[in-house]
Amino acid sequence: MEARLTQVKALVQQALDQSLADLPAGDLRDAMAYAVTGGKRLRAFLVMESARLHGISDQAALSVAAAVEALHAYSLVHDDLPAMDDDDLRRGQPTVHVQWDEATAILAGDALQTLAFQLLADPRIGTAEARLRLIAGFARAVGAQGMVWGQALDIAAEAASEPLDLQAITRLQDGKTGALIRFAATAGPLIADADTAPLDDYARALGLAFQIADDILDVTGSEDVTGKRVGKDDAAGKATFVSLLGLDQARARAEALVQQAEGGLSPYGEAAGNLRDLARFVIERDT
Amino acid sequence: MEARLTQVKALVQQALDQSLADLPAGDLRDAMAYAVTGGKRLRAFLVMESARLHGISDQAALSVAAAVEALHAYSLVHDDLPAMDDDDLRRGQPTVHVQWDEATAILAGDALQTLAFQLLADPRIGTAEARLRLIAGFARAVGAQGMVWGQALDIAAEAASEPLDLQAITRLQDGKTGALIRFAATAGPLIADADTAPLDDYARALGLAFQIADDILDVTGSEDVTGKRVGKDDAAGKATFVSLLGLDQARARAEALVQQAEGGLSPYGEAAGNLRDLARFVIERDT
Repeated sequence: MEARLTQVKALVQQALDQSLADLPAGDLRDAMAYAVTGGKRLRAFLVMESARLHGISDQAALSVAAAVEALHAYSLVHDDLPAMDDDDLRRGQPTVHVQWDEATAILAGDALQTLAFQLLADPRIGTAEARLRLIAGFARAVGAQGMVWGQALDIAAEAASEPLDLQAITRLQDGKTGALIRFAATAGPLIADADTAPLDDYARALGLAFQIADDILDVTGSEDVTGKRVGKDDAAGKATFVSLLGLDQARARAEALVQQAEGGLSPYGEAAGNLRDLARFVIERDT
Repeated sequence: MEARLTQVKALVQQALDQSLADLPAGDLRDAMAYAVTGGKRLRAFLVMESARLHGISDQAALSVAAAVEALHAYSLVHDDLPAMDDDDLRRGQPTVHVQWDEATAILAGDALQTLAFQLLADPRIGTAEARLRLIAGFARAVGAQGMVWGQALDIAAEAASEPLDLQAITRLQDGKTGALIRFAATAGPLIADADTAPLDDYARALGLAFQIADDILDVTGSEDVTGKRVGKDDAAGKATFVSLLGLDQARARAEALVQQAEGGLSPYGEAAGNLRDLARFVIERDT
């Protein structure tokens, strides 16, 4: 998996750099470039592997991977704003509104969302129908019935007097982080017009495991290694998988989800080795 | 023109209401619905008339009109934020961040942009190729080389020590308000795969006339009639077409642009009467 992840990282950074090179120079473009640099690129990896499993070339899938990472970057820039999670550190660097200002962060996020849709219209991806399937699926995953909906619930939960229960948190995370992960993992069958169900099952379990691992890292991780502030959820009295289940049970639940994710890959046999490794990596990472 | 504008207003509001009805209930959806209500619907009108001139039915064009208005609404919600233009009044009502809060305004704007792209993928519009032409053109018009780029320039100009000159303001407005107006006016030929140049010429002049009229209204208009704060540009020492040209010359320039816009319509003959009326209306409106 590591060699492939290194390759995907380089490819997707190059694709993003090329898209940004077409834009007018200035603070806006600089802030966009800053926001899309670095990160684990797990979503891009999901796109590229899901495409490979469906016989789609790296060249065809690359704009989809870049779109997903541009969208993910926008969501981080807006989530970090003072009016939202108010974070000053991301990927070990000052957040965009700290490095520039709030207006630039809002606009850079806005333009990264636009760029994501622009990338999905890239003719290299495949037929017009394939691109429209991607665009429609992407819009469902990121808008007011997907990621943004989950983020709105998260903000509302912070203001509420009662912390969320396990069912509510699972639902929230399925939108906030799960929807884009599911889109990324099903990009291959979407392009190929094949059955998305097995990879959707895989990604649903993977996304939840990923979030539980994030909550564990917020308790056990260090700022130096994760590159972002830790201990924030606890300090804010926010319900998380760890606060609700305890550390041991949260770890056990993440492990069970990884096994469930692996089950979703069975139709793909040995070809899905990288995605199996990824599921394992997601709960064993320290960043 | 008025009967058609009334018809377009009703159609586009219905289309937006229907799209929002599919979303999960809550503050996010309420804020989106609030933001897309009201307004002059000039952009939707441009879409519908441009489509009609190319033999495209209202039913086919309606999702494009709704997309343009959803995008316009997102841009207003984000522009009104405290970190941007800091406006508390819009269309005679409190702005979204005043009515709810900043986080909800940021997220509602984000989700309205997503909704706009989702609407452009609507199969009722036409062939897959037609929809992709629209999506690609739309992304260019609204992202970091179009509207958002213009807004970033505008924010930067406020912080700069020297006010902008006429050329710089014209360029800025061509992005900030012009790009979406040009997209709307060329939606018909984009769907029909016809020549966009005449309507692009029309819309370029119309957009600039529209902006000059806005600057004039900021000086001569009243809050009661415009539904937004007036006198803001002057108070902020911001360069506008009025501050640079004076009121009389600004009016003369707007009049010349309207005539130029009418010239762009000549290939369409009498069928373009509504678009001719619109150009006249744009500089004679008091709101």
